[in-house]
Amino acid sequence: MAWLTATYLIGAAPEQIEARAQALAIEQSVECQLDAIHDPRIIENVVARVASIERFDDARFRVAVQIATATIAGETAQLINMVFGNCSLWENVQLIDLDLPPALLARFPGPRHGIPGIRALLDAPRRPLTSAAMKPQGLPVAELARLCRTFALAGVDVVKDDHGIADQVYSPFPQRVRACQAAIAEAVASTGRPAFYAPHLIGTPRILRDHARVARDEGVRVVLVAPMIVGLPAFRDLVDEFPDFVYLAHPSFGGAARIAPPLLFGKIFRLLGADAPIFVNYGGRFAYPAAECAALAAAARAPWGDLRPALPVPAGGMRLDRVDELLAFYGPDTMLLIGGNLLLAEGEALLPRAHEFVTKVMVTI
Amino acid sequence: MAWLTATYLIGAAPEQIEARAQALAIEQSVECQLDAIHDPRIIENVVARVASIERFDDARFRVAVQIATATIAGETAQLINMVFGNCSLWENVQLIDLDLPPALLARFPGPRHGIPGIRALLDAPRRPLTSAAMKPQGLPVAELARLCRTFALAGVDVVKDDHGIADQVYSPFPQRVRACQAAIAEAVASTGRPAFYAPHLIGTPRILRDHARVARDEGVRVVLVAPMIVGLPAFRDLVDEFPDFVYLAHPSFGGAARIAPPLLFGKIFRLLGADAPIFVNYGGRFAYPAAECAALAAAARAPWGDLRPALPVPAGGMRLDRVDELLAFYGPDTMLLIGGNLLLAEGEALLPRAHEFVTKVMVTI
Repeated sequence: MAWLTATYLIGAAPEQIEARAQALAIEQSVECQLDAIHDPRIIENVVARVASIERFDDARFRVAVQIATATIAGETAQLINMVFGNCSLWENVQLIDLDLPPALLARFPGPRHGIPGIRALLDAPRRPLTSAAMKPQGLPVAELARLCRTFALAGVDVVKDDHGIADQVYSPFPQRVRACQAAIAEAVASTGRPAFYAPHLIGTPRILRDHARVARDEGVRVVLVAPMIVGLPAFRDLVDEFPDFVYLAHPSFGGAARIAPPLLFGKIFRLLGADAPIFVNYGGRFAYPAAECAALAAAARAPWGDLRPALPVPAGGMRLDRVDELLAFYGPDTMLLIGGNLLLAEGEALLPRAHEFVTKVMVTI
Repeated sequence: MAWLTATYLIGAAPEQIEARAQALAIEQSVECQLDAIHDPRIIENVVARVASIERFDDARFRVAVQIATATIAGETAQLINMVFGNCSLWENVQLIDLDLPPALLARFPGPRHGIPGIRALLDAPRRPLTSAAMKPQGLPVAELARLCRTFALAGVDVVKDDHGIADQVYSPFPQRVRACQAAIAEAVASTGRPAFYAPHLIGTPRILRDHARVARDEGVRVVLVAPMIVGLPAFRDLVDEFPDFVYLAHPSFGGAARIAPPLLFGKIFRLLGADAPIFVNYGGRFAYPAAECAALAAAARAPWGDLRPALPVPAGGMRLDRVDELLAFYGPDTMLLIGGNLLLAEGEALLPRAHEFVTKVMVTI
C-alpha cells in the first residue's frame, strides 16, 4: 500500500489533540466509527493514520496524517476531497502541506512550461521578469488595447487583464482579445522584443473551453486563470486540453486562511499545471507575512519529482519604489506584477512610468 | 444601473472600519486607487459602494457593499469572483449574505426539482424523508450493493454513496452504479415503494460528464455532488447539462469559516441548482451552532425569486436516538441522513436497525 502525507495545523488543548488527530484521520478516509467497519482489510489499507503530532505554537499542533493513495486513484477532485474535504468544515484546522509518493505525483504533469519555458518564450534567460495589469474594468476595448500597447512599448514582458475583467458588455472577450493581440503585435514590431498579452479565462467549464479556443485562434500564448474560482478540477482539465498556453494562476477566492498559502499557491496550483502563480506580496494590500511569501516562492521553485519549477509572481499593491527591495528578496527567478501603481500616471505620462518600472527591473540584477 | 448587495462580517477596530469597508468595495470592483481611474463613468457605474456599516459584535462589523451587476454579466464564476474573490484573501473577512436584483437572479434557474420535485419522485407529499450513506469506502461493489438493497428494503428513501467513494479500483464507478441500481430495483420490487440510489459524481469536468452519462444510462435519478470540490462553475454546467437528476449537494471542501454556512449551503448551492443541500448538523461531529443550522434550513426553503425551495439534509454524526429531536427542530420538509450510526449493526442486524430509523421518521410527524 502507498500513502500520501497531509499535514495540518490543528488548534486543540494538549489533552485533546490525540483524539482530534485520530478523528481527522477517520473523517478523511472512512468517515465512520471503526466499530462500524466489519472488514479488517479496510482497517489496514483504507483507514488513514496519524503519523506524528508535534507542538506548533501555544494553541496549535502540527499533525501529519497518512492517507491511502488507493482512495484517490490519481484523480484531481478526489485528491482535494481526501486531503481537505470534510475536515475543512472544522474550525481551527488548516491544511499546510502535502507529500505525494512518486507514483501518485507522476499522475500530475504540473507546469507545461514553468520557469524555463517562460524564459524561453520571452528570450530572457536570466533577468527578473515584469508584468502589468490593465485596469480598471469598465474601460472599453479601445482603452484596454491602448494600455496594452503602452505597457508593451515600455518593455513590460506580460500584460495581463485585471482579474475582474471577464466577458462584460463593456469589453467583450472576443473583441478584447483581438484588439489587445493587435496592440501587442504593434508594440513588438516597434521594440523588436517579445511581449505577451494574457487574457483572463473565467467561466463555467464550457465557457472556459470556448474562450480558450478563441484565444488560441488569436495567437494568445499566455493566459490568466484563477484556479479556485473556476475550480481546481476544471483548471486541471483546461491545462490538459490547452497545454500550449503559459498559465498565470490568480489567487482569487483562495480563502487562504484555511489552506496555507505556500501550499495552495506554491504547490497545489503548480501540481495542477500553473506555470506562474500570482500571490499577494508582503507589505502590500493583503499583508501576508514576508516569511510566508518567501516560503511560497521557494515551494513554487523547489525540486518536486519531475515537475517543472513554477515562476513566482508577487503582486497586490506593488509599488515602483519597492522594486529594488523586492528583487533582493525574491531573486531573479521572479516576475514582478504591478497594476494600479503604474496607472496613477495618465495619458502620455504612462509610457515613461511603465518604462521606469521595466528599467529598474532590468538593471537591478 | 443595477446593483447586488453582498454582506460581510469584517473584524476591525471602530476607527478603521470605514477605511476597511471602502478598501473592500474597491478590491471587489476596480482593484486600484480611485486616483488611477481617469473615466468618471467608471467611478459612477463600476466602483462598488459601501451601503451600510453596523456593529455586529465586540470585534466585528456587518458591512453591506453594492456591486454593479454589469461587472458580473450573469455568469457563475464571475459572480463568485466579484463577491468573494480577492477579499477572501484577507483575514477577518467573512461573506455572510448575498442579495441579487431580479434581473440577475433570473439568470440562475436554481433547483430543477427542489422540495416539490423530490416529494413527487418519492411519492411522499408531506412526511419527512430519509437517507442513508453506504460506508466505508474500500468495500467491494457486491458489499455496497448489499448495503444499498438492505437500506431500501428498510424503507430508506435515498441511499447515497459515501462522499469518499469515487472511482477507485475497489469499487469502480460503472460497475458500482450498475450493481446498486439493480439492488435498489430488487428492493423496490419487494417493498412496492419508491427508493433511489444516489451515486457520487466527482472528478474534473470531463470525468463528471462521462460519469453523469453512465448514471443516466443506468436509470439513476438522484446524484450526489460536492459543489466546492468540483468547483461551483462546474457544478452549474453539470446541472444545466443534466437537469433531470435530483442533486444532493455535499458540503465537502466548503471551508465554512470564510463563507457563512447558511449562505454557502442554503443559498449559493441552491442558486446553482442543488435540490437538496447536505450540511453538518448541530451536536454532531462538526458542532455547528443550532441557530446556524436553523438559518441554513430556512434559507434553503425561503421564497427567493422564482427559485424552487431546496430540501435541507442535516447529516454528519446523526444518531437514531436523536430523530425525534431533529424532526421537531427541522420540521417535515427535511431529509434526515444517517450514515455510520446505522452501520454499527452488522449483517442481519442492519435491516431492522435501518427499519427502525425509517419508522421513527414516518410516525414522528
